[in-house]
Amino acid sequence: MSAEAATALGIGFRVLANAPSDPAAQVVRDIHLGAHDDLDALLAFAQGLTVITFDHEHVPPAYLEQLQALGVAVRPGPAALFHAQDKIHLRRSLNDIGVRSPRWRVVSQLDDLTDFAAEVGWPVVLKTSRGGYDGRGVWVVKSTEQAVEVLAIALAPDAEWLAEEHIDFVQELSAQVARSPHGQAVAYPVARTKQIDGICAEVVAPCPGLAPQRAVQAQEIALRIARDLDVTGMLAVEIFDTGDAFFVNELAMRPHNSGHWSIEGAVTSQFENHLRAVLDLPLGDPHAVAPYAVMVNILGGDADDLYSAYRHVLARDPGIKVHLYGKQVRPGRKLGHVTVIGNDYEQLLARARHAADYFAGVINE
Amino acid sequence: MSAEAATALGIGFRVLANAPSDPAAQVVRDIHLGAHDDLDALLAFAQGLTVITFDHEHVPPAYLEQLQALGVAVRPGPAALFHAQDKIHLRRSLNDIGVRSPRWRVVSQLDDLTDFAAEVGWPVVLKTSRGGYDGRGVWVVKSTEQAVEVLAIALAPDAEWLAEEHIDFVQELSAQVARSPHGQAVAYPVARTKQIDGICAEVVAPCPGLAPQRAVQAQEIALRIARDLDVTGMLAVEIFDTGDAFFVNELAMRPHNSGHWSIEGAVTSQFENHLRAVLDLPLGDPHAVAPYAVMVNILGGDADDLYSAYRHVLARDPGIKVHLYGKQVRPGRKLGHVTVIGNDYEQLLARARHAADYFAGVINE
Repeated sequence: MSAEAATALGIGFRVLANAPSDPAAQVVRDIHLGAHDDLDALLAFAQGLTVITFDHEHVPPAYLEQLQALGVAVRPGPAALFHAQDKIHLRRSLNDIGVRSPRWRVVSQLDDLTDFAAEVGWPVVLKTSRGGYDGRGVWVVKSTEQAVEVLAIALAPDAEWLAEEHIDFVQELSAQVARSPHGQAVAYPVARTKQIDGICAEVVAPCPGLAPQRAVQAQEIALRIARDLDVTGMLAVEIFDTGDAFFVNELAMRPHNSGHWSIEGAVTSQFENHLRAVLDLPLGDPHAVAPYAVMVNILGGDADDLYSAYRHVLARDPGIKVHLYGKQVRPGRKLGHVTVIGNDYEQLLARARHAADYFAGVINE
Repeated sequence: MSAEAATALGIGFRVLANAPSDPAAQVVRDIHLGAHDDLDALLAFAQGLTVITFDHEHVPPAYLEQLQALGVAVRPGPAALFHAQDKIHLRRSLNDIGVRSPRWRVVSQLDDLTDFAAEVGWPVVLKTSRGGYDGRGVWVVKSTEQAVEVLAIALAPDAEWLAEEHIDFVQELSAQVARSPHGQAVAYPVARTKQIDGICAEVVAPCPGLAPQRAVQAQEIALRIARDLDVTGMLAVEIFDTGDAFFVNELAMRPHNSGHWSIEGAVTSQFENHLRAVLDLPLGDPHAVAPYAVMVNILGGDADDLYSAYRHVLARDPGIKVHLYGKQVRPGRKLGHVTVIGNDYEQLLARARHAADYFAGVINE
């Protein structure tokens, strides 16, 4: 999706891909094959580039510094990106800049955790400080017995256990901003996200019923984090909304699933603004082009052929926008998404869910 | 721009390009190098493809038939496409199906032309029946003396002279439709186009002030042509509007410059609907997402570096959408376009013209 934006902008675009079958490798002209944690591959990839950016957080920080030493701009920079790589570091920095998060504690043994639970109450959220994504590396534990089980899981060598207060939220929000090295920033409409089993399932932008002054408050939180952590490019701030308070959960410093709606729903998509930001070009207008945009992810079902579903979905709803990523079907895998824009978000949700469910084989009418 | 649509739809996409520096060859993964009038290149290109379509009309009809004989679907088919290749054939077919065109006559010598001018009045439009585009191969002649000069120009071996009545239009329109092999068709809002020196300069969609019943009449003309000439894919019908009558000028059977506005301005762009149509997939919604969309072409000026203009244009108007094609700058060459959507088409025109003029170096503030 970034490549589509780069093509329109006339920006040269190279992608490091693991294999020729990777989604980006199927459609981008200038592909280097290699792993994101292979320094030699990274150094070869970087030759001749002006700016390097990311679609995930997993490049080792030390390697990013070596790329910088080569004279290539790395955006976001390693220091900023580390907040998206290490959840303990993120919690410390959010405390330092005065942004409210769930209460948290680094726990190295069961006693630490039971002390913490005595303070904040059960359930407690246990997270590995590094390496989790899409719900992996996160457990909600309701008792000492469950905690014992989770803490018995082997941690990666560089990871620790982070315990967090469980926030009883009414909804989850995503506040996205783009920020450029020279300090320009723009804020997208705050979106409502719904996770199922830790995976983003659907997004409505803007969040229905969110009071305008609370939406601005969420945007201000994201703008403050972007500035204080020196983020460049897109920043997505995941927020728990209890109805009267916001708690920042996690950050993503890249185009994020919660902003896919912006391809059709905003004047300038998150993909275009990420490129403009990391290239230090003036940023584009993040405003919505319709009252609502709804995005629902297409997850793999049991059928491994999407084509008949594809024909049905296109025929049933000419206004639906289908994005397929060229991935092999596996149950539960994100294979693409659908977006629809219009006036009535509940109708839009019904249309988008129907399309996604049809792709997944959950319904067949 | 078709590649961007193919990527989103997850459609495999191969392009035949003349050189690695061609705009498409810079961004599309699956490129074959070769000329569109080299049969061997075409046959090699076609291996493994399901459908072949076009971004211009210049592949020789006999070669298209050889591709069909290979078992590849060619859409639009050679018989339909011939109407966009040969202007005399087009005039005959439009007469046959009862669509009004300017009065016309094939002229082989000066006497034919002066007879025709005596009938329809000067000026007369002289065209080569084949090979012209962007205003080339078209002359408006006001006298016998001028006609002598033009008729002295050597014609290509397969071309003839076509004389046409000069229509005193108040505006030019583009009526675009998409039609699929199974006969589904959709009509886009009718756009107003402005040509300068025979080159499309700017487009406003929908055409301001066009009465709804006349807009429908123009759409019906395009739908009739698509059906009766068995067009598949996008069809653009260029129409002279005298204020009370429509005269069909020329056809394009592909995504057309007059429809670039649809990338941002319509639910489904002309590029996506062209792909959906030639693949016989259900067509997407052609409706506008905003009251007006305005597109202005970026033409090359004297400066050969676009980058400083690029920064200025993006900074001055965050809502402008810039599309650059990766071409070397040459004065007068189409290098890209800008699109802007909103409520007030005169303001939109002012913004888009300013951006294009700035790229061209016509203004510098």
